[in-house]
Amino acid sequence: MNKNSSNVMAMAPSTSNKRETVCIFGTGDFGRALGHKLIQSGYPIVFGSRSTQAPSLIPRDAEVLSHAEAAQKATVIIIAIQRQHYNFLTQLAETLHGKVLVDISNNLKMNQYPESNAENLAQLVPGAKVVKAFNTVSAWALQSGTLDASRQVFVCGDNMQAKQMVMDIVRSLGLTPVDQGSLLAAREIENYPLQLFPMWKFPIFLSLGLTAFFFFYCLTYNVIYPYVHENQDFSFYIAITIANQICPTLALILLASVYLPGVLAAIIQLYRGTKYRRFPDWLDKWMLCRKQLGLIALAFASLHVLYTLVTPIRSFIKWRTSSQTISEALNNKTEPLNNTNAWLGDSYLALGILGFFLFVLLGITSLPSVSNSVNWREFRFVQSKLGYLSLILCTAHTLVYGGKWFLYPSSYRWYLPHAYMLSLIIPCIVLVVKFVLIFPCLDKPLTRIRQGWERNPQYSE
Amino acid sequence: MNKNSSNVMAMAPSTSNKRETVCIFGTGDFGRALGHKLIQSGYPIVFGSRSTQAPSLIPRDAEVLSHAEAAQKATVIIIAIQRQHYNFLTQLAETLHGKVLVDISNNLKMNQYPESNAENLAQLVPGAKVVKAFNTVSAWALQSGTLDASRQVFVCGDNMQAKQMVMDIVRSLGLTPVDQGSLLAAREIENYPLQLFPMWKFPIFLSLGLTAFFFFYCLTYNVIYPYVHENQDFSFYIAITIANQICPTLALILLASVYLPGVLAAIIQLYRGTKYRRFPDWLDKWMLCRKQLGLIALAFASLHVLYTLVTPIRSFIKWRTSSQTISEALNNKTEPLNNTNAWLGDSYLALGILGFFLFVLLGITSLPSVSNSVNWREFRFVQSKLGYLSLILCTAHTLVYGGKWFLYPSSYRWYLPHAYMLSLIIPCIVLVVKFVLIFPCLDKPLTRIRQGWERNPQYSE
Amino acid sequence: MNKNSSNVMAMAPSTSNKRETVCIFGTGDFGRALGHKLIQSGYPIVFGSRSTQAPSLIPRDAEVLSHAEAAQKATVIIIAIQRQHYNFLTQLAETLHGKVLVDISNNLKMNQYPESNAENLAQLVPGAKVVKAFNTVSAWALQSGTLDASRQVFVCGDNMQAKQMVMDIVRSLGLTPVDQGSLLAAREIENYPLQLFPMWKFPIFLSLGLTAFFFFYCLTYNVIYPYVHENQDFSFYIAITIANQICPTLALILLASVYLPGVLAAIIQLYRGTKYRRFPDWLDKWMLCRKQLGLIALAFASLHVLYTLVTPIRSFIKWRTSSQTISEALNNKTEPLNNTNAWLGDSYLALGILGFFLFVLLGITSLPSVSNSVNWREFRFVQSKLGYLSLILCTAHTLVYGGKWFLYPSSYRWYLPHAYMLSLIIPCIVLVVKFVLIFPCLDKPLTRIRQGWERNPQYSE
Repeated sequence: MNKNSSNVMAMAPSTSNKRETVCIFGTGDFGRALGHKLIQSGYPIVFGSRSTQAPSLIPRDAEVLSHAEAAQKATVIIIAIQRQHYNFLTQLAETLHGKVLVDISNNLKMNQYPESNAENLAQLVPGAKVVKAFNTVSAWALQSGTLDASRQVFVCGDNMQAKQMVMDIVRSLGLTPVDQGSLLAAREIENYPLQLFPMWKFPIFLSLGLTAFFFFYCLTYNVIYPYVHENQDFSFYIAITIANQICPTLALILLASVYLPGVLAAIIQLYRGTKYRRFPDWLDKWMLCRKQLGLIALAFASLHVLYTLVTPIRSFIKWRTSSQTISEALNNKTEPLNNTNAWLGDSYLALGILGFFLFVLLGITSLPSVSNSVNWREFRFVQSKLGYLSLILCTAHTLVYGGKWFLYPSSYRWYLPHAYMLSLIIPCIVLVVKFVLIFPCLDKPLTRIRQGWERNPQYSE
Repeated sequence: MNKNSSNVMAMAPSTSNKRETVCIFGTGDFGRALGHKLIQSGYPIVFGSRSTQAPSLIPRDAEVLSHAEAAQKATVIIIAIQRQHYNFLTQLAETLHGKVLVDISNNLKMNQYPESNAENLAQLVPGAKVVKAFNTVSAWALQSGTLDASRQVFVCGDNMQAKQMVMDIVRSLGLTPVDQGSLLAAREIENYPLQLFPMWKFPIFLSLGLTAFFFFYCLTYNVIYPYVHENQDFSFYIAITIANQICPTLALILLASVYLPGVLAAIIQLYRGTKYRRFPDWLDKWMLCRKQLGLIALAFASLHVLYTLVTPIRSFIKWRTSSQTISEALNNKTEPLNNTNAWLGDSYLALGILGFFLFVLLGITSLPSVSNSVNWREFRFVQSKLGYLSLILCTAHTLVYGGKWFLYPSSYRWYLPHAYMLSLIIPCIVLVVKFVLIFPCLDKPLTRIRQGWERNPQYSE
Repeated sequence: MNKNSSNVMAMAPSTSNKRETVCIFGTGDFGRALGHKLIQSGYPIVFGSRSTQAPSLIPRDAEVLSHAEAAQKATVIIIAIQRQHYNFLTQLAETLHGKVLVDISNNLKMNQYPESNAENLAQLVPGAKVVKAFNTVSAWALQSGTLDASRQVFVCGDNMQAKQMVMDIVRSLGLTPVDQGSLLAAREIENYPLQLFPMWKFPIFLSLGLTAFFFFYCLTYNVIYPYVHENQDFSFYIAITIANQICPTLALILLASVYLPGVLAAIIQLYRGTKYRRFPDWLDKWMLCRKQLGLIALAFASLHVLYTLVTPIRSFIKWRTSSQTISEALNNKTEPLNNTNAWLGDSYLALGILGFFLFVLLGITSLPSVSNSVNWREFRFVQSKLGYLSLILCTAHTLVYGGKWFLYPSSYRWYLPHAYMLSLIIPCIVLVVKFVLIFPCLDKPLTRIRQGWERNPQYSE
């Protein structure tokens, strides 16, 4: 043991200001990884364990004592034990009185217990100052030193001083402590590492549902109808042609659904005459996942761009082009350039390119590091002004592409319109309502409401 | 009131270390939002108001008192009032003596008043310690909890301790305080949320101006000239053909203008024989917006790539290709492969692809989070070495594309050269001068000057 | 001098809490830049110099004294002198006793001296508290205020208090101090600004080597073979055709090599029955540069996409298409659509697009700011699940593209298979082994081993 502590001295040479000993209860995987890292940062470490026989994997510079002995040597005690084994701590209540207990435990599923592990610990050892921390860090990342994912360590606790001590330890390990408030926040912190893109769930399910719907719709329209009516096999359309109908359709619908809740909120505020009443729950949730909806729309738009650009190297298209050319050559006829077609063809492509370009710009500004480096006014400018411009361009792109088809009876197969006609419904509604809301007679009261003005102010006198 | 304070207790349970009461003057929109957030973080809140009748929108756990009473309850007083109503504070001078006053106000336009709001407040209440903070945060973001834009709160003030107290509050709200120095910085902090991409103004106006110039130039060259001389209508060129001449031209000119100021600075330093004299103002400003110029150039280059890739699906190009093929077929002639053309065609495409690839790489490394994770030497390596390589490749791409046209008289319409010839001027100048500067007879003295050596050292003895 | 200090007062007005004087030894380039910046932040500055004649470039508000006099005026002394001139400090040992010496020096090459500059300084002046800091910041960046590259300042030192004082100064300059532990870390900190993408070296050399190999392989296969056997000149293939064979080949091999070490590690862990024995060194290193390998693979994949998309605008391809069409027209034959070809052609393109799309997604999540905003479970989900899906799609894309060629004798020139056949070896191995490892009989023990279970636990009793 003497040898061990002298080793620690060598690592943190200046004896006058050596770091305080930290105690770790439990010699499991995470306890050991944390011990290693703490020793590297110059903390003397003592492990508390049932068996005081040091297992071979304990860091060399650490000593292993019984729980009670180990606890006496340190102010900060890290509880690297699973929640179901916490009960033995009640026997140590006296020793642990006034100590800082760091709860680092995680559960296997969300909200597994009625109260959080940290609050449970605080109830078991009422005299101790419980701090929740480190549960978001992986043992593997600590060991390998490659903290690719977050360096943030969420910390919460009721005692300011205890929290400060733990945050100092976190900082000296090269991690970033984030104060999350009182121990009430422990539940949320314990759920955090278990969640899998919670904000993305609704947008992803929505887009999966829409994808399935439009897949079968386009399959009916493009493959089943020709097969039934003309006995032609266009099943290979599934790979690219149908995918390239689904992608732009979803991109446009999802992009419009980013701006729809804002428009709805404006109508509700105008109707109510105040901004101080909560929106319906569904609208609140919708508004909070607009960023995710927009990014999924961008993903579909990018796929649409790639699917469109490979068109000329598809073997079906090559065959169609060459057989058209051959038949024209054999019929000895050369068509003159149709100027209107040239205009329409070029402008729908140009509108699409510009709309997609603005859309990518929106995506880039929603990267965390970019949005952190702009102020609120700049962020709003990009996300609102440029976003609407992008929606207008993309809607125009779709309208120019197939506007003429609305009039052709052949566009309606089994009375079904072409998929892209359906894709235009929501964007057009959003743009029309937004256009109406810009009129001064509606814009002025709305602006005043948003600045805090109320049509029927209510005081609780 | 007793009920209220007991609620606060429930939220910040550990009584021994409960947070200090914070007072907020003003029950307006931002005051209430901040109050809500502070209560959530465990601060007891007291509002100071003219009317002590609590309006319904005040957070339940807060109490509302007169200004003087409220001020006595707290050390930190947040002034959530507009600047024009500050005057009543002079009457409270005695109560406010020694208190920390947090000025959170913003103006409607930049430099609206001769002195900043915070400095004005400090003059009105000379005994108080004024700290500027929170003005960059939006009330809506505080309320909804979605701080998409910056979490940074700029803080400044003359009293270190007062500033520290405010920064602790900022931190406990989950925001990041950034110390900006003494109260002199308040003016800049108050201007910050009003600015709209100030560093982007010059680059954007420059590129808009150039875009307009080249649009009319290309319109004359490609549409008006054929219409006048051959009576042909190529107006549909506007959508893509002309856009795809403007984009690469601007991309190349702007990319070269990123490296031009560096070359000019080197010449000036060589001429003066010292690096310790300031550059002319225009050069300083130019050097500071090089990143923005480069990113706009990248935007134009990306548009050029998209415009080029859609070429084969344009209806005009499809018509031209098929009518050429048909006329060849009808004339019964097949041309053999021209090997030189194949070489030239493929190499200009390959050069363009590689140049664009490096350009995108430069763009990615200029993302804040990426540039923060490289050291100074790595950043210089990418931005300087790879940047010049990209400029060389893009210039070569343009030269190979249309080098032969320099010699054709038909390239000069109304004595005007083709737009891409103009686009080559600045890049070629930059590359030639840079090439000259690499010669040891110039590079050696330049390196020594940049290390601090002076040809005619001046001491102020 | 009196005039100077009164100026300083004007900049940090509140006299009751004015910042402590900082002393800078050395009036060189970096010393002056730091002095300017410190004065801007309100620190009174005194320079220590051999000659007390203030050179003209010293900031106006600073005074210049002899080393001993200057040292007495401040607690924190910044040593802006090169290491080879440190020796005179031994004479000042008495004056410097108890002072905080900040070593900001850098070396010209890595590990230039047996011990770090800061440790050397600590040996020369044993009574002082040496702190290493500021060496990663460039003088130019300090002067111009544009800290494009990192704002991080690595700080290390044995005395906690001294380190804290230096970190406070760093913070007040608007920079981010990062505590790196005891003075032992100085060596690493001194090497940091000299390194040039150390983690990228192996991946870049590997990919350069593979590029060279596949370039000559494809040159032999596509240019030399036809020239020798059929006397045809396909040298223009070098620009695009061969590049577009190298890029997908390298992208696939490098992507597979991202997942190969994980598969190898699993086999080793299964064989050993424990996760607590270190992997071989080469495997450890390989695992640590997986991110870099993946990003280089993404770069090659992006180039492949661009090279493929320009196919229809290559003059060689245009010539080939039109001469094929003409010869068909002249022979008066029109081939019917081959449905199988249409299916194969479209599905290989669709697989490639989806694989590339997921690949780009992986690249985006590896941006520092994005990976910081997800938790460990989400990061693993994207990098592992989506990564394997991308590998499967890209391998399938390659298999569908040229699977039939395996059977054609004409694909083997001089007994060499086509390059893309070679590219399939590693991906197929990785996918097959991974598929085997998913079986419960292997997956269950592996999961238990990774949770810390050992087949033959060893205790050092």
